[in-house]
Amino acid sequence: MRVPYETMKETFREILVHHGFDENDADTAATIFADNSLDGVYTHGLNRFPRIIGEVDKGAINPRLKAEPVMRAGAFERWNGHRGFGPINATAAMNRAMELASEYTVGVVALGNNNHWLRGGTYGLQAARKGFAAICWSNTTGNMPPWGGKQARIGNNPLVMAVPRKNGMHFVLDVAMSEFSYGKLEQYRLRGEKLPFIGGYDEDGNLTDDPGAIEKSRRVLPIGYHKGSGLSIALDLIASMLSQGNTVGDVTSFGTETGLTQVMIAFDPELLGDRDATDEIITKILDYTATSTPAVEGRPVLYPGEHSYMTRQDNLKNGIPVIDEVWQKVLDLSAHC
Amino acid sequence: MRVPYETMKETFREILVHHGFDENDADTAATIFADNSLDGVYTHGLNRFPRIIGEVDKGAINPRLKAEPVMRAGAFERWNGHRGFGPINATAAMNRAMELASEYTVGVVALGNNNHWLRGGTYGLQAARKGFAAICWSNTTGNMPPWGGKQARIGNNPLVMAVPRKNGMHFVLDVAMSEFSYGKLEQYRLRGEKLPFIGGYDEDGNLTDDPGAIEKSRRVLPIGYHKGSGLSIALDLIASMLSQGNTVGDVTSFGTETGLTQVMIAFDPELLGDRDATDEIITKILDYTATSTPAVEGRPVLYPGEHSYMTRQDNLKNGIPVIDEVWQKVLDLSAHC
Repeated sequence: MRVPYETMKETFREILVHHGFDENDADTAATIFADNSLDGVYTHGLNRFPRIIGEVDKGAINPRLKAEPVMRAGAFERWNGHRGFGPINATAAMNRAMELASEYTVGVVALGNNNHWLRGGTYGLQAARKGFAAICWSNTTGNMPPWGGKQARIGNNPLVMAVPRKNGMHFVLDVAMSEFSYGKLEQYRLRGEKLPFIGGYDEDGNLTDDPGAIEKSRRVLPIGYHKGSGLSIALDLIASMLSQGNTVGDVTSFGTETGLTQVMIAFDPELLGDRDATDEIITKILDYTATSTPAVEGRPVLYPGEHSYMTRQDNLKNGIPVIDEVWQKVLDLSAHC
Repeated sequence: MRVPYETMKETFREILVHHGFDENDADTAATIFADNSLDGVYTHGLNRFPRIIGEVDKGAINPRLKAEPVMRAGAFERWNGHRGFGPINATAAMNRAMELASEYTVGVVALGNNNHWLRGGTYGLQAARKGFAAICWSNTTGNMPPWGGKQARIGNNPLVMAVPRKNGMHFVLDVAMSEFSYGKLEQYRLRGEKLPFIGGYDEDGNLTDDPGAIEKSRRVLPIGYHKGSGLSIALDLIASMLSQGNTVGDVTSFGTETGLTQVMIAFDPELLGDRDATDEIITKILDYTATSTPAVEGRPVLYPGEHSYMTRQDNLKNGIPVIDEVWQKVLDLSAHC
């Protein structure tokens, strides 16, 4: 079944208002959920929606608590998220980073004490759509061992880099520092498949492509082995330093993944010179990679964000594919409004 | 044979002056070369020195050409490196990024049209030693295929993140976006060893740990497969946008690796609040990872920069290990001064 984008967004909006979001925030949050499904990131869109409403009902997320600035120094601001709804706070923080960038070319907001931001790409796309380039990341609970260690003491700390294009086909990279997420491992195991690459260690300490063995050992592999481990630690260090907030270790000690830090860095290309020249540079880089001979004949070389863009066009035209039972669950929530 | 640090530095300095560096620059450059060897990065220290002198003599590097600012906007400056000596220009750019950070908390310098900066970690350490955190990177010539492609059309674009510690044991991450450099592949091949992990494709398009097969196909693997490919492109996009300079594709077309862009981002922790509190946060993160049970008994979990720190102490005390013939070559250069 496929559901029109506007129907999905309006249904989300109505439910969010009913569960305590004010009108503005309900609109922002509904757009974020619907856009994630629209872009093909269903795990962070419709499929996550009922669970988030459950967390709101339990009081784990209080939609009335809003992030606010607590310190300002030049092109930098520190915000406290007060553990409100993660994506609303993250959106506000990126908006502020863009305002600072409009003044200083670069703007940085460190948002501490926030909840999960859902899909990191959301904020990269948010910036690109306003014509800004952005680098942003979040720390997480400890879900990966540091290189050389056994316990999960570093986060997969998703890192996002986005660059705007005049044609709207923005470059948006959104990568976690683990090679595979636990969600992906489960998907492969349930399908009875091996991973396409080595993804972690088994319980005997051997590298393996068996998803179930890695789920048991809890030793997922960082991207680039020691390199991704170092990147993960670096992102946590800079985030925690900027926010003076919770480290991956702090978050791990909470038992539940909350109180996270997100860092938003925005660059305003408007101040960097001629916009057409900048757009030409971006297009030149993406065209150069795109024209590399495909490794597999007939499968074009895509850049990060390009596949999402194509999915978006398809889903806008033909509706968003949904798992019928999940959509029904949302319709049931809507019936109670 | 081991050579005292001061002897090595002074020998370099003398040679650099003789080959056209002014007194100040000779001192900075000699320190960079000697420090790289001191830290155990011999490939970018003594072992590279004779080759760089050769390039100066040929006129490929003009030590009298200095980077200079060409545009300023808020916390951002754009510099033109005029293809002078890469490390001198990069050092000046990082110094300027720190000055901007002292004013705006964050400072950014995009240095275009520069030569190779040698070891990226140099500039992370430079910032950390002054008490700043830093993120910096360089683009390179095309030396890796984009994910899904065959020709080398993206760079390994080394990325550096550094965080200062009061005890001087700074965190310095310095990672290229390729799993293995061509230098490393050659080392393994010459020793007749397989790579410790899959490192690229053979000429039939199969993933392999055979270094020689990858050298033939020229298809090295990005860290984290598609993720490192995306990161590499993102770094080139942002660098080229900020510098309005040469992209990886432009540099590739030059045939020789010159005219590169480096981006220096500095954060001033002085403006972020209490320095002791910040140092505690950093120590907390590094201690938490360090106390993960070692995967191999007796082999402690180290953080990026820790091994270099230990090598530095050892080499300061006992002298820097050198390949006798290379050191002799440098002494010969010195005899001609």
